[in-house]
Formats: sequence, C-alpha cells, structure tokens
Amino acid sequence: MPNPPLIVEVTRGSMVESRHRCIAAVAGPDGGIVKSWGDFERPIYGRSAVKPLLALALVETGAADAFGLGDAEIALACASHSGEPRHVDRVRAWLKRIGLSAADLECGPHLPYDEPSMRALLRSGREADAAYNNCSGKHAGFLTTAVHMGEPTKGYIRYEHPVQQRLLGLLEQLTGLDLSLAPRGIDGCGIPTIGIPLGHTAMAMARLADPVELPPARAVAARRVVAAMMAEPHMVGGRGEFASEVMAAAAGKLALKPGAEGVYAAILPGLGLGVCVKAEDGAPRAAQAAVGAVLEELGVFSATERAALADRLRPPVANRAGLEVGRVRPAAEAVL
Amino acid sequence: MPNPPLIVEVTRGSMVESRHRCIAAVAGPDGGIVKSWGDFERPIYGRSAVKPLLALALVETGAADAFGLGDAEIALACASHSGEPRHVDRVRAWLKRIGLSAADLECGPHLPYDEPSMRALLRSGREADAAYNNCSGKHAGFLTTAVHMGEPTKGYIRYEHPVQQRLLGLLEQLTGLDLSLAPRGIDGCGIPTIGIPLGHTAMAMARLADPVELPPARAVAARRVVAAMMAEPHMVGGRGEFASEVMAAAAGKLALKPGAEGVYAAILPGLGLGVCVKAEDGAPRAAQAAVGAVLEELGVFSATERAALADRLRPPVANRAGLEVGRVRPAAEAVL
Repeated sequence: MPNPPLIVEVTRGSMVESRHRCIAAVAGPDGGIVKSWGDFERPIYGRSAVKPLLALALVETGAADAFGLGDAEIALACASHSGEPRHVDRVRAWLKRIGLSAADLECGPHLPYDEPSMRALLRSGREADAAYNNCSGKHAGFLTTAVHMGEPTKGYIRYEHPVQQRLLGLLEQLTGLDLSLAPRGIDGCGIPTIGIPLGHTAMAMARLADPVELPPARAVAARRVVAAMMAEPHMVGGRGEFASEVMAAAAGKLALKPGAEGVYAAILPGLGLGVCVKAEDGAPRAAQAAVGAVLEELGVFSATERAALADRLRPPVANRAGLEVGRVRPAAEAVL
Repeated sequence: MPNPPLIVEVTRGSMVESRHRCIAAVAGPDGGIVKSWGDFERPIYGRSAVKPLLALALVETGAADAFGLGDAEIALACASHSGEPRHVDRVRAWLKRIGLSAADLECGPHLPYDEPSMRALLRSGREADAAYNNCSGKHAGFLTTAVHMGEPTKGYIRYEHPVQQRLLGLLEQLTGLDLSLAPRGIDGCGIPTIGIPLGHTAMAMARLADPVELPPARAVAARRVVAAMMAEPHMVGGRGEFASEVMAAAAGKLALKPGAEGVYAAILPGLGLGVCVKAEDGAPRAAQAAVGAVLEELGVFSATERAALADRLRPPVANRAGLEVGRVRPAAEAVL
C-alpha cells in the first residue's frame, strides 16, 4: 500500500475551494526511495522536468566544448524559458554558431510566457518564431549534438532519429530500466516523451545530484549541467518563474525544473538526493506547492530562505484588482 | 456514502497522463437529486456559474425593461465573455444608456481571452480597461439595477451594498438555505462568492429550468434569462468557447455556464432539470468533460449533435505544431 498522496489546498476566503493530489518521491543515488507520497511506482511522463537528464548528451558527446558553450547555453538546454530577450537572443546567437537558425528548430512557435516580452513582441508588429518556444534551448542542444556527431539535422525530433535514440539510451542507463516497450507520447515541442515510474525519475535525478556511480564522462557532464543550472537560474526559466526564483534564493543548494502537466524535478547535490513530483491532475500550482513542501521537509532551506520564499511556497491567490483573496498551500496533515 | 466521483482522464500517446475527480449532481425543481457523483453536499463557490441566478435581479426589479435591455444585454449579464468587440462594444453602449461608463465598473481590467482580440488590442497600442473584463456584463447589470433602484453605484461589489444583499436574498430563496453564516470569499472580479452545497446549486438551476414553484415575477425573470442565454450563446462566452459552442449546437435545449475553479452549471428547460459540476482540483478542462458526460448521460444531445460536438466533449490535446497527441475524456467506468 502506498503512502497517502501529498495534498495541496487552494483557499478562498473562509473555505478550501480546490484540492490537488500529488505523488512525490525522494531518492538516493543508490536508487533507494528515502521518502514518498502516493503511488510512486506509477509511470509518468517527465516532460520538460527531465531536460537536465537530456542535456547530458550535449556535454558528454563533446558537442558543448566543440562549440564553446558556456553555463548560459547549457542552462538554456535545460530550460523552459519564458521568452525574454535574454533567452531568445542567446538561442539565436548559439544557432548561428553551429551554422543553423531558428528555421531549423522543429519545436513550433508560441508567444512568450513573460507578459512584458509578449506585449513588446506584439506591439512591434512581429510574430513569434520557434526561437521564442520555451523549449528552443533544448532543441538548440539537440541540433548541436547532431551537427557535432555528423547526423542529419532534419527530423531530429523523431523517435527513430539518432538524437532521440541517444537520449533513450541515456534515460535507460540513468533509470536502470529497459524503456523499449515503455509508454510513449509526443511532447508539446514534438519530441518523444517516455513513461517512466516516478520513483525511477527521482532516482535519475539523484544520480545527477551525486554522480559517483556514473561512468566518468557522464559524471563530469552531470556535475557541469547541475552547476550551469545553479549558476544561471533565470536562463532555466525567467523572471518571477517559480523554479528560477527558488534556485536564485537558495543559490548553490539545488537545481529545480518543472515539466508540463504538473511535474517537478529537483537535484540536491549537497544532500545527494533527487526528487520527483507529479500533480495527478496536471496542475502547475499544485506541483510547485508540493515540491516546495518536499524541499522544506528535507530541510533544504535556511530560515532566511524560507522567509524570502514565503510567497513562493504558499503563493497568494489574487483577484483582478490585485487583492489577495486566498492561498495555495500544502495541507499540513498530508505533509507530516 | 456518496457515489464515486466522475473521473476525467487526459491521455497522451499510449498512457493516461493526468486524471481529475469531479463532483456532479442533477436536481429536479422539487429539490430532489436525480443523479450524483461524489460528495454533492460539499459546499462550493459557484463563481461565474451562478451568474444566471444573479441576473434574475436585473429583470425582476424592472431595471432591464426600464432601460430597454434585450437578449444580448441579458446574455451579457450572465456571461464570462472572451473580450471580442461584440462583447466590449455592447457593454460600453449599455453603460452609456444608464448614464455611466467603464470607469464605473469595479471589476478591474484584464486582456481579452480571445487571442485575435487580444492581439488586435495590443497591436493598436491601447490597454484593456474594465469593459474587457469577462465579467463586465454582470457588473453592468449590477450598476443598472442600482441606478434603477436609486442605490449608490460606488461600492456595489461590497457584501454590505444593497445590490449584493439583494443577490444574497435571491440565492437564499432559490437554494432554500440561510446563507448568512455560509463560507464566503471574494471572486476574481471583486464581488462576494458564497459557499453553497453543490446539490443546492444544482437545485437552484433546476428552478430556473422549471420555474413553476417560483414567485410569479421571479418565474417570468427565470424564463427570460434562460431564453436570452439560449438566443445569444456567443454573448455568454465567445467564439470557440465550450459553453457557447455547446449551446449553439444544441440550440434551445440548454443554457450552460462555466465558473472559475472548475465549476459548470446547466439549465435544461425541456427536462426541468438543473446540473452542477465541480472539478475538485479546479481544472476547466475537467469540468467541461464532466458536464458533457452528465449531459450525454441525461440524453440531452441527438446523435447529430453528439457527432457535431465530438471534439468538444472529448477534446484533442494538441502540441505546439498543432498535432493531436492525446484526448481529454470521461473515464467510462466512472460515468456509468
């Protein structure tokens, strides 16, 4: 019997208005589950939360060094960025460096998540191209690896392409699973997303946190990817974005990454632990509150950091006039 | 013991990725619960789903007739509109007719939900004012009633104001409950929202569907409000909006209204039934699929209508490139 799920409540005035159930697991680098909430053996699509795992290929193939990529580009390879100029301009410059452009990205376009950037784009009369897609850094990384390995760049998002097969192998090694028959879907940006038990996803994150058991080149790549995320938290998300702000407030303690449909992954190098959270209903607000509760439970934050993050960990619900009318919070009894 | 909740699944590729639990009840005009899923005695905030109940005041006070309001304005009083020009222009003309303007609306501004309208607004260099707020028609209705009754217009969103006290009395009569001590919060647009058991909310909708037991003036108002919503489905929401499209496809069979945090209300005049649905986690996609499943269960749609609504009742999940990668659907076993 699994433990009860982690419950997140949304209050409004004197009542709990909505309630979310979250699955969560904390793993050590030996693959052992240290703490759990809900059925952590359930397969989940890690979505963008596994980008730090996928970014290992960019480094361990030698592609990152061949093109002189720094922390900012590696952080972008792990990013779901908000489409600010710092993200979009850096992706364009990176693509130019590998002899390609935004036209080679197969992720499709969307408007920036960052509202000032979205407004500025529309007011300028321009349209978003694929460089604005929150996944454009990950796709630039895929293209960089393909160019470096002499693989075709067209069709790099397809399951059969060498880029995706390399990533599948990476996921298999990090989770210790044969994923050839795993559930499979297509992510928002067109790449395959693989169904992996939540506990095994947490285990893969733990191996990034403490890569001592990984093959040497992979261990070096793991340390570099995690360091890049922690060095450039706002390249991984953007201003005001939950994971970016938590990483910035607790600098050097963790790498944190959301994925669509309520997924979060955390990598804790100091503790050698990995975390994965999935809101059963897919709600980002629930996954944020749940991963925050797990991090608090693990004692990650100092009292000062907790105070600085109070409105991130239990965010206010505001009405259109900006008045606080409720809160999103972990239900205490379910966390303890 | 309540019945099991109504489950809505979100698939991606070969797996269910996310899952929602919904409470639902179908009531007859005598207050009896005909069908139910989950704990329908739980209090919920009806949010914008109860706008058709609140619109009764606009008609039964005589305010609508005094200012010559037609179906379009009464539909807007029930609306969560998407900020298209047809909505915003009509609200402005209406406010002018009562000697007021958008500056008198206390709902706050936000960008139109309708993307072409949002883009056009930003490209024009203008900013949204309160007329663009999805609740601007409801607020115009409140102001119209206040003007007609000789009440102050300032502060009409406050719990103590005669406008809100009149609405509280209306809700008490329609639900048969003393709501003076009910849970209370502030809605997105600033007005009070009252915690009412979901089954009683369904009962109030049933009384709109078959108003034979209501006081005569209220019964006339109920018929007029429901008829206005069915006559002007796109004034109640907008192009592509779930409730508007369902009302348009099954013309004359139902009035349908969403509320924030996963609420839906349906009024079925032909069957004399009222429906209320609440997704426990507040997800609109779950509430849509759940209310669709309840309406199908009640046999509301003809085979032709079901076919026309197939992509509304079980909507595709698309990636950024527009490819269908999954579906939102009721989990069959939970509906039966």
